[in-house]
Amino acid sequence: MSEYRGYNGKALEFLKQNKVKVGDTVKITTDFEQTATIMPRYEHSDDLHIVVKFKSGYNVGLGLDKIKKIEFLSNDIPVQTSTNSIKQDPSLPKVLLLSTGGTIASRIDYRTGSVTPALTAQELNASVPELAEIANIDAEVLFSEYSENITPEHWIKIAQRLDSLAKSDYKGILVAHGTDTMQYTAAFLSFALGGFPKPIVLVGSQRSSDRPSSDAALNLIGATKFIVKSEMNGVFVAMHNSENDDDTACHLGTRVRKNHTSRRNAFETVGAKPAFIISQDTMIQNFAGPYFRQKDYTPKINLNSKVALVKYHPGYDPKMFEHLLDQKYKAIIFEGTGLGHIGKSMYELVKKAKQENVFLGMTSQCLDGQVNMAVYESGRDLMHFGVTPLSNMIAEIALVKAMWALGTDAKNISETMLKNIASEFTE
Amino acid sequence: MSEYRGYNGKALEFLKQNKVKVGDTVKITTDFEQTATIMPRYEHSDDLHIVVKFKSGYNVGLGLDKIKKIEFLSNDIPVQTSTNSIKQDPSLPKVLLLSTGGTIASRIDYRTGSVTPALTAQELNASVPELAEIANIDAEVLFSEYSENITPEHWIKIAQRLDSLAKSDYKGILVAHGTDTMQYTAAFLSFALGGFPKPIVLVGSQRSSDRPSSDAALNLIGATKFIVKSEMNGVFVAMHNSENDDDTACHLGTRVRKNHTSRRNAFETVGAKPAFIISQDTMIQNFAGPYFRQKDYTPKINLNSKVALVKYHPGYDPKMFEHLLDQKYKAIIFEGTGLGHIGKSMYELVKKAKQENVFLGMTSQCLDGQVNMAVYESGRDLMHFGVTPLSNMIAEIALVKAMWALGTDAKNISETMLKNIASEFTE
Repeated sequence: MSEYRGYNGKALEFLKQNKVKVGDTVKITTDFEQTATIMPRYEHSDDLHIVVKFKSGYNVGLGLDKIKKIEFLSNDIPVQTSTNSIKQDPSLPKVLLLSTGGTIASRIDYRTGSVTPALTAQELNASVPELAEIANIDAEVLFSEYSENITPEHWIKIAQRLDSLAKSDYKGILVAHGTDTMQYTAAFLSFALGGFPKPIVLVGSQRSSDRPSSDAALNLIGATKFIVKSEMNGVFVAMHNSENDDDTACHLGTRVRKNHTSRRNAFETVGAKPAFIISQDTMIQNFAGPYFRQKDYTPKINLNSKVALVKYHPGYDPKMFEHLLDQKYKAIIFEGTGLGHIGKSMYELVKKAKQENVFLGMTSQCLDGQVNMAVYESGRDLMHFGVTPLSNMIAEIALVKAMWALGTDAKNISETMLKNIASEFTE
Repeated sequence: MSEYRGYNGKALEFLKQNKVKVGDTVKITTDFEQTATIMPRYEHSDDLHIVVKFKSGYNVGLGLDKIKKIEFLSNDIPVQTSTNSIKQDPSLPKVLLLSTGGTIASRIDYRTGSVTPALTAQELNASVPELAEIANIDAEVLFSEYSENITPEHWIKIAQRLDSLAKSDYKGILVAHGTDTMQYTAAFLSFALGGFPKPIVLVGSQRSSDRPSSDAALNLIGATKFIVKSEMNGVFVAMHNSENDDDTACHLGTRVRKNHTSRRNAFETVGAKPAFIISQDTMIQNFAGPYFRQKDYTPKINLNSKVALVKYHPGYDPKMFEHLLDQKYKAIIFEGTGLGHIGKSMYELVKKAKQENVFLGMTSQCLDGQVNMAVYESGRDLMHFGVTPLSNMIAEIALVKAMWALGTDAKNISETMLKNIASEFTE
């Protein structure tokens, strides 16, 4: 790790002049005096600020012109790699933690002042010692991205690595992932790895682990317990079930949504209770299963991202939709209003899209409830034009499913979209 | 009303041959025999189906080839216009019901077999007699649209009519409106009619009034009670508070969302309790007010719909965003991920948009919670590029607000978007 990671120009000069570097604990004087750790910067940073972490836990960018004085205090980075080697208990099952980045994977890094996720088994066990009593955890860093930067190419990479583990001796696999787009990744894995024989549990955290309120440890423990105790395969998302530290909710990967920007229990199963709730001593099961409608494992790891999500609203200009047709989008998922409607101004272009053999699927911006296009004449008209109602599939999940369906079997996309593959419809 | 409204070609021929018409109760034989009412059709209908309403309440399109026999039974349309004239009680306040269409306004029409809303004061009082004991209701049909067909031009029309009533002797105004896009209309009225001196209450129904489970009557009664009892001005949405018929929730027009496709309590205040809950005898007040941050009524009834809503997701092609810049969109509202993020692949175009002086506002697809772009470096980068975090403003409301801000004072759009005008931010 560079000692000045991400800093350039004036900000880099400032650090060098003051003989402090990333990871150092310093005393900073602005209008008042505070102790803080110097944090690395991101690749698109300006050179007029340094970023420090105060004791409150949040990072703050400080303008160089606001800093009256900065003094080196210490650099007591805990050297996690020197912790005792992990106790392995041969009676416990093996679980793999595959890290893809996100807040949960940056726990050690925040403490040392680096945002490069580097989650080794040693570091994990040192920070969450309870894990070693539940399972023998191996850890592997697949890549390190905050989840707003996860792309469909990353989905493919995760799926391929998981596919290679289908016959391994792991009881299940934890995927550490940023929370922002966790539901999209969970959906892709659900479709691409249909019938995967082990539980795959995506786990993240809403607060970095160096904050007293961090949810990382409880989420990891709950997710690991679920893998060890449950006999169900499938793709799940494990996050806090409430604002306190009592239990972990394990959601179906195709029915989950991040519904709050910051709360620890930000994730919710749409229209139902979480599939499983794991607490200290018990596991409540609300979902009977199976997750996958197929018994055999038949991976289809491919996609075509030429799919658009169109949220209809008053004032939506049909020309924006027409542009998608011009750009040869092959599938369009509507986030319609109410039971699955879009305005009359869209009708002629909807007909045109069908003539061009574009798949048009209807979901609802209401989020919860079934699309029902038989109730009103406008819905019936749209169905007549060839729009496919997608039951209660969540819009974002339908988008990912369409990318997958288009990339694996474009000809049968209509049929695939209506088939319940991984519990994406509630029946 | 045409006796064959909306029918053409073969379907029209079929009705004529069988001597039945819209509104008739008929005996239909398909694979079995049922009693039904012939419903009118919509303007974009094919000529291979007729639409009938069965006793279950839902409309069904029947293919002509499926109908073995159809026989006229009766045409006992209740002639509502012949009901007794309304009792006026001079001690009660006056309330205007302004109808714009939607399911609630089609109550009488569904019964007679017509979907043209025609809600007169007589019809209303005849169907919801309790209303006459709460207020003296005048009714006026402004236009008749299902709300998926409401456009910004309709918003202007509603706002102009309301503006003309600002100094009238009405205690408040009920706006009957389709539920699909009710929240968008409520938002526009909130901004365009800032400081309007009377309560404006949008009211709709999730089930047409001829169904036993209809919510129309309770919603109308609750909304009228609110107008009569409350001393608060503002724009509200009144709908069922729960699945039963106990009480009506009165939501802030800028904090409400249709969160379920079909439930009677589909509308929810995001992140808080409904502002008011009106039951038989009591009114619970959860919102202290005021709704408008300004005291004086200063209408600004204008808009510019050159605003786009961009929901960011993995696989979102930045070229779609670039097209908006090419098309000279003047404001773009992001539905970002989590605390308000979009992927790195968007950064260069975000910079370009700012160079072209496009307003970029950030909301979250999480729906609930605050956007906070100071927590992660990616959020800080976006702010540095000029993206404006919009606190906890709901994405759809931010879209409408930007259209209004652009149409009334384009130069100051950034300032206007951050100013709390009609309780669109929670403070």
